[in-house]
Amino acid sequence: MHQNLFTDDKVDFKVLRERATGMRWGALPEDVIPLTAADPDFRPAQEIRDAMIEYIKGGYFPYPTQTGMPGLRESIARGQWERNGVRVNPDFVLPVDSAAAALHAIATSILKPGDEAIIFDPVDLLFGISVRYAGAKEICYPSIRENGGWKLDDLEDYITPKTRMICLCNPHNPMGYVYTEQELRHIAEVANRHNLWIMNDEIWSDIIYSESKFTSINTLGAELNQRTITCYGFSKGFALPGLRAGYIYTMGKEAYDTVTRVANGSSYGVDVITQVAMKAAYDNAFYWVDAFREHLQGIRDTVYERFSKMPLIKATKQQATFVTFPDISATGMTSKEFADYSLNVCRVAIVPGTVEWFGPRGAGHVRFCYATSHAIINEAMDRIERGLKAIADKLA
Amino acid sequence: MHQNLFTDDKVDFKVLRERATGMRWGALPEDVIPLTAADPDFRPAQEIRDAMIEYIKGGYFPYPTQTGMPGLRESIARGQWERNGVRVNPDFVLPVDSAAAALHAIATSILKPGDEAIIFDPVDLLFGISVRYAGAKEICYPSIRENGGWKLDDLEDYITPKTRMICLCNPHNPMGYVYTEQELRHIAEVANRHNLWIMNDEIWSDIIYSESKFTSINTLGAELNQRTITCYGFSKGFALPGLRAGYIYTMGKEAYDTVTRVANGSSYGVDVITQVAMKAAYDNAFYWVDAFREHLQGIRDTVYERFSKMPLIKATKQQATFVTFPDISATGMTSKEFADYSLNVCRVAIVPGTVEWFGPRGAGHVRFCYATSHAIINEAMDRIERGLKAIADKLA
Repeated sequence: MHQNLFTDDKVDFKVLRERATGMRWGALPEDVIPLTAADPDFRPAQEIRDAMIEYIKGGYFPYPTQTGMPGLRESIARGQWERNGVRVNPDFVLPVDSAAAALHAIATSILKPGDEAIIFDPVDLLFGISVRYAGAKEICYPSIRENGGWKLDDLEDYITPKTRMICLCNPHNPMGYVYTEQELRHIAEVANRHNLWIMNDEIWSDIIYSESKFTSINTLGAELNQRTITCYGFSKGFALPGLRAGYIYTMGKEAYDTVTRVANGSSYGVDVITQVAMKAAYDNAFYWVDAFREHLQGIRDTVYERFSKMPLIKATKQQATFVTFPDISATGMTSKEFADYSLNVCRVAIVPGTVEWFGPRGAGHVRFCYATSHAIINEAMDRIERGLKAIADKLA
Repeated sequence: MHQNLFTDDKVDFKVLRERATGMRWGALPEDVIPLTAADPDFRPAQEIRDAMIEYIKGGYFPYPTQTGMPGLRESIARGQWERNGVRVNPDFVLPVDSAAAALHAIATSILKPGDEAIIFDPVDLLFGISVRYAGAKEICYPSIRENGGWKLDDLEDYITPKTRMICLCNPHNPMGYVYTEQELRHIAEVANRHNLWIMNDEIWSDIIYSESKFTSINTLGAELNQRTITCYGFSKGFALPGLRAGYIYTMGKEAYDTVTRVANGSSYGVDVITQVAMKAAYDNAFYWVDAFREHLQGIRDTVYERFSKMPLIKATKQQATFVTFPDISATGMTSKEFADYSLNVCRVAIVPGTVEWFGPRGAGHVRFCYATSHAIINEAMDRIERGLKAIADKLA
């Protein structure tokens, strides 16, 4: 059902070229396919757009309150319960202007100069940016998938007396991994043992493929999560990156008050139209998220199968997210060289696994975003395949 | 012309009661008139609403770029030139999510713990909040209007080796004052002599009454303003507080790079619909601002004349802004007591001149916002007059 929302003809190049100016259609030559920013090629749910238009027709845009428009926190709490089984008290939900701003607020509220925060490596750049902005030091813990799980056995070895926080990205971008309950329990127990805070980014929690299951660390109970601060954004599952829509939630009052002191100080409330979009999304548009995820599962399968048959590239089958992070080190190129080659020769723009984007262990990898149509992804795969074969021929 | 936009019947109580939940119609008993937050009772220009709806109909909301949608910085630079005679290079304009966020970014980019910043006192609370958030100390310089001007002769006495910044609010909220060119030159020269930065808030620069003239400190030239960082918001003149719309501009690259480092780190771009509103405002809606200002001038006159005839209250005639800050100390009440009396007895909600809102020298004053209709302001003035007469009778 609703799969007609994601047919090839639903990608509107004209509008995308006008608007997607952040490393995407509007920023690149016309013949380039941009699989860069994790920014969908499909329009978000009609219900969300209708709600915003209706609000604008009402005509007034008064100052928002810090805690959001009436009913917003309740809608979010209900969504967390129904979708993820997390029992959030609406009083501990804070709307914020993007998950990026949330990470920033969390880091600033917890970390002082001289503190250390553990960051999985590789991971999305915003973790490191937030930690450094707070004046603290990022300690990279290797992100390694092994034996079907996530390597965590020596996590505790990275903790020093200066450690204040563990930064968790669940599901993990760019590795497309969902942590198991057992792994999350291990992380929570380590954090509790050492009185650490957990910055828990769940921005990808809507995009989980059918054979996997998302577990929020918060389902382990409020006691283990007194110092967990979770953030969510509407950019991925709901395809609303430009609205800067997100929220923070906590399982206890101390954590809520801690992060709110900073979030209050920096944002003074979120754009009211964005709030309308958030409420409409949680009240009426999860059907769209499910349909989008179903569409993406087909694309995920295509990408994985196509990469499996190409030379010099090694991809994992993503459990979650709409990005993939294959190893291209067999090409003999650095990730930057390969991304340049992909752009200049294959005409497919991708993100290099350089230290600024993903941390030191992104080396030898590149990230593809595949939130697009079958037609576009197949064309991109054709181009990458030709490019890899040409490199393989040269190497042979 | 366009005065029919501001007739009494244009105040839509139904929508305001639903939406204005920040200390205003939606947060107070039905019989109370809220003259609290500086939040207009009129809908903003139709052109702005239409542009947002048109954008939403296009359907996509991709990631914004840090510097804004194509043409936005150019529209802002053109507006600054045409309205204020400021020659801004579009490359030194940064869209931000509200003037509040701008003040925050400016303070954080300049001040370190231990630094001092000079703040006029009284002034809007956000100056002190920003300075304290950056870990610095606010040094209060008395805001005094004397001999038709602004007392500045001993400004330099407040500068110590720790001083890093002077915070200017021009036009001044809540005192409704526009600085003269000579006064601005004095402030700029003092700042330059001591290598200080100037945080220059021009959020009120659209609401200037006909007998006054707004001068931006930036018209004194780029040389005197190399360390001036200016911010503007769309909440006042354009009546768009809920959209969190604003921008920062500077006259030189060093200042731009300094503030951008922080603003980039915190916001990662402004909501795209808000950007559409900002561009539409500057491209097409200054006619509305002028009509609004003309309407407000009538209200300003009414408020001033009515207060002049009431006992125990002393108001100045505002040159700018749509707030007024009369002295009520003759009532024998503190500002908090008078605001409580006004709310509970007169049924008019106003803002007390307490230290949290305006600084120590707000004492003995209360702030009225008058961005409303003639009918509402006359009713509010009737109520305040009765309340003051009752106090006067008691005192007699």
